[in-house]
Amino acid sequence: MPDIARKIRDSFARQSLITTLGATLDTIADGTVTITAPILDLAKQQHGHGHAALTFAIADSAAGYAALTLMDAEAEVLTAEMKINLLAPASGDRLIAEGRVIKPGRRLVIVQSDVFAETDGTRRHIAIAQGTMIPV
Amino acid sequence: MPDIARKIRDSFARQSLITTLGATLDTIADGTVTITAPILDLAKQQHGHGHAALTFAIADSAAGYAALTLMDAEAEVLTAEMKINLLAPASGDRLIAEGRVIKPGRRLVIVQSDVFAETDGTRRHIAIAQGTMIPV
Amino acid sequence: MPDIARKIRDSFARQSLITTLGATLDTIADGTVTITAPILDLAKQQHGHGHAALTFAIADSAAGYAALTLMDAEAEVLTAEMKINLLAPASGDRLIAEGRVIKPGRRLVIVQSDVFAETDGTRRHIAIAQGTMIPV
Amino acid sequence: MPDIARKIRDSFARQSLITTLGATLDTIADGTVTITAPILDLAKQQHGHGHAALTFAIADSAAGYAALTLMDAEAEVLTAEMKINLLAPASGDRLIAEGRVIKPGRRLVIVQSDVFAETDGTRRHIAIAQGTMIPV
Repeated sequence: MPDIARKIRDSFARQSLITTLGATLDTIADGTVTITAPILDLAKQQHGHGHAALTFAIADSAAGYAALTLMDAEAEVLTAEMKINLLAPASGDRLIAEGRVIKPGRRLVIVQSDVFAETDGTRRHIAIAQGTMIPV
Repeated sequence: MPDIARKIRDSFARQSLITTLGATLDTIADGTVTITAPILDLAKQQHGHGHAALTFAIADSAAGYAALTLMDAEAEVLTAEMKINLLAPASGDRLIAEGRVIKPGRRLVIVQSDVFAETDGTRRHIAIAQGTMIPV
Repeated sequence: MPDIARKIRDSFARQSLITTLGATLDTIADGTVTITAPILDLAKQQHGHGHAALTFAIADSAAGYAALTLMDAEAEVLTAEMKINLLAPASGDRLIAEGRVIKPGRRLVIVQSDVFAETDGTRRHIAIAQGTMIPV
Repeated sequence: MPDIARKIRDSFARQSLITTLGATLDTIADGTVTITAPILDLAKQQHGHGHAALTFAIADSAAGYAALTLMDAEAEVLTAEMKINLLAPASGDRLIAEGRVIKPGRRLVIVQSDVFAETDGTRRHIAIAQGTMIPV
């Protein structure tokens, strides 16, 4: 796990969009990864809330890295498909995406994510995502 | 249509994430909108291709504004859900998202998008998306 | 809840496809419904497993009736969209779909389902689904 | 193509649920397959329309067999995931699903389907689906 965690942190740091969005890796465990992001002024939609693509970005990344925690050390992973339902506006102090593996596999890894918006320590559920990662 | 087009351009300009990504509105017609984006250094994933969230951002926006072309002048639209299948890496000179309305409606607007990566004038199909917009 | 439960049982009984598939309503609680189905000879795919449409049918119904448990007594519900990831073949003694409401709402109800295949009392997770129900 | 067409007809005939629903293979071409189904009394939902699982069954099958038209003679295909948006009730004389391959591949085949309800020769668009088939 330490090697996998370091590899995930290296990969995360190389994603320039993730850096642009100010997202950070929170926790890495077997089959689950948590990513946190502020709602920067550069990442909003037309009503001043976080953009759906910001929510998607952290939901997708948390799920992808969750998949990576269960794969071989040399493996990489790509998103094949992802479906997101947006439950509420992305507003508050920060967003938190919790990704997890539902079914690991050699060819396909099925994943889910929950995204929450936190304000003054209170969380609102703002998105759920379900998708498929493929090893490359 | 001129009023709707101006309203869409105003809304588009207020989406800071879209400005951050360098995306531009290409064409606006009844039920279809095209958005173009470069693959900026700030919008990449770990292998140097455009990030899935960049592809998602323009697929979602093109579909959302396509929905707006068929709605009342004072209407606004939100993404309720969106599903994207990524077909190939987002690499090349620029990305082009074509959004269209499959079924307009007072409560739900069903939409699809295709995203292409263009290199030296040649297009590769890199993503398809299918989702639901709701008037607000 | 007793009235809602009776209404759900009545509605369930009127779904001829559900009767054809031999599915039964297992449990009804606030925001969750469980449906069980055998894998009848008339409901198989080409390799002799349960058909994906059987899995979809009970995942969708469990989610739809879960939505109905949280709605007004006179409300009805329709599936607007549903996404299913199939994790493993539908084989075993019977299938069990657990539907739940993730976010209730006046206009949209966001739902998820898990489907399990049970063999000799042991459950395998065979599908996850995520979708949107609308009151009608 | 004749061999593939025969193989698809054989596989289709072995799907008991498809036989139960009365569906028939209409056309088979490179990358596209059309399936037709009546709305039998045994395949309805609680309001007397065709059940969502009937629409799903033919959308999924048309897409899966479309994938098979582009694969090796000995290949088989499974649905990994499928997302369906229901546009209108499944009512009328019969349902028609048109499946097509968006992107063939050795590991994943990305597919779409449109489903129409035909009444007195007039078609209404009742569903769109987008998913992933995997060779097995």
